[in-house]
This record gives sequence, C-alpha cells and structure tokens, in this order.
Amino acid sequence: MQAREIAVNVPTVTAADPAVHAVRVMAVNRLPGLIVVDDERRPRTVLPGSQVLRLAIPGSYQEDPALARVVDEAHADLFWQELGELTVGDCLPRSPARPATVTADANLLEVAAEMARLRSPIIAVVDRRGVLTGAITLERLLTSLAVIGPGPGPGDQTAT
Amino acid sequence: MQAREIAVNVPTVTAADPAVHAVRVMAVNRLPGLIVVDDERRPRTVLPGSQVLRLAIPGSYQEDPALARVVDEAHADLFWQELGELTVGDCLPRSPARPATVTADANLLEVAAEMARLRSPIIAVVDRRGVLTGAITLERLLTSLAVIGPGPGPGDQTAT
Repeated sequence: MQAREIAVNVPTVTAADPAVHAVRVMAVNRLPGLIVVDDERRPRTVLPGSQVLRLAIPGSYQEDPALARVVDEAHADLFWQELGELTVGDCLPRSPARPATVTADANLLEVAAEMARLRSPIIAVVDRRGVLTGAITLERLLTSLAVIGPGPGPGDQTAT
Repeated sequence: MQAREIAVNVPTVTAADPAVHAVRVMAVNRLPGLIVVDDERRPRTVLPGSQVLRLAIPGSYQEDPALARVVDEAHADLFWQELGELTVGDCLPRSPARPATVTADANLLEVAAEMARLRSPIIAVVDRRGVLTGAITLERLLTSLAVIGPGPGPGDQTAT
C-alpha cells in the first residue's frame, strides 16, 4: 500500500488561528495532533497532541513545571483560559522542527519510520509541490497494517 | 481537580512482553501510548504511541529512513512481522527518558505541563511508593478541562 491509499482528510489550522481554537479542533475531532498549514495549504508544522496542548500552557509553567505545583486547584483547572487572543503562530517554538510529511507514493514502512523518528502520531501527506493532500494518524496506520490480527477472536480484539 | 480524579485504568506491558504484543495492546485499546511497568507495577518507561510503533520497526530502517523507500510495497506492509520473538525490553532505547509520571495529588496544570514537557500524550499516576495507580491520556485531560466548551452547540462539538 501507499500513503495515498490510507490517507484521510483532517481539519487543519493556520498560524493565524487562535491557539484555543487549535486545541478545540484537535479535541472535538479526536485527533492525535494537528497540521498547521500556510496560505497555500503547505504543512508548516505538524504538532503531536502534547505540543498542541503546549500551545495552551502559559510560558512560565512550560519553563518551570515546579511552578505549576503551587497553583491552587481551581485556578489550575482553568489555566488554558489565560491564553486570551494568542494565536497558534504566537505560541509555536521559534525554530520548529521539519514538518512530519511523506509523499503520496511513500510505502507504509516509510510512513512508520518517519512517525517514529519525528515522534509524531500524525503525518501529513503532500503532493510534489508540497501541498497537503491528506493525513495519516498512527491509529490509521496500525489499522492498515493489520497489526491487530491475525490473533484471538474479534471479541478479544475489540475489548477496551 | 487532582490527577486521581481523572485517572483511568489502562492495560500495561512489561519489558518481558513481546514487542508485537505491546503494539497490539495499544491498538486494540485505542491508547495514545503505553506504560511499561516493572514487576512491582512501577512505571519503568512511558512510551508515546510513535515510540511504541518504533518498537516494531527493524533497527536498520530506524537509523536510515531512506532505506525504507527502496523496500517494495508488499514487503513494507509486513515490516512489523520481522520482529519475531523480540521483547519490549529488547527494543527499548538503552537510556530511556525519565518516565512521564505525576503523583495522585497533582493539579491539572501540572499534568498538562508534564505532558507537554515530556512530549507524552499519556502520563502515569503513581502513589508515594512510585507504584502505578492509573493513567491520564491527553484526550481525558482535555475532556476534563472542558476545553471543548463553552462554545457552539453540542452538534458542532461532537462533529468529526
């Protein structure tokens, strides 16, 4: 199989979107991360979920996790509301890593190797011009690889 | 809220389990990662999903992703079958990072800051002796923080 055969459409965000919006897009769509595209829909950054969450954490707590410990519980529950008007672009690291992308003709081992190497549970599939054509999540990859079977019966395999 | 209030039980693996089993446990339970525990159920490593996937990738392709490109598609679809009898312990990095853990009384900002800092979409909750008592996934954290609302109506919020 090739990347194009298992890629799916996912909602994306741009650097101009509010950071809170990005977190919501990921949460409501149950995505493991987000693709940040530029105005030509080329992936600028591919963020693993933990780094989308990071967008929502005030900088002082990112740099000194011990500081978070002394925040009272009620305040801690609402930390993400401090974001206000900050955009995704405002919250991204200054020198972001190369976006996790593969071309549409990549084989599934390439997809897996890139996910593992870049520590990203979501990878953007791009055409020759670098424009986004779809995305592959880790869950989608594992399902496509049929890692789940052959094994015990279906009853065991869907147990949660 | 405290970590203990949102923690859930998740299946775990040990270093002695076959690596293929670990990938399956993650896939069938739709977890974003896995907690590897020792014989006393203390978290030894907490692996993000991409690093569980990495367990299944033959070492030569991990080190040189370009090599994956020249593998024919049919073979690439089955790469994980090469694992054979290798265990999780065999495939773990030699010097694993400190496991992503919080204590049961951690507030949600601490949980979030640790997830972001350690780039882990799953975090182990431990008691004072360091024994696993539960886990918090990124999805669970976001739901608990109610990042999804207040906002548009439920119809919009559950759209996928």
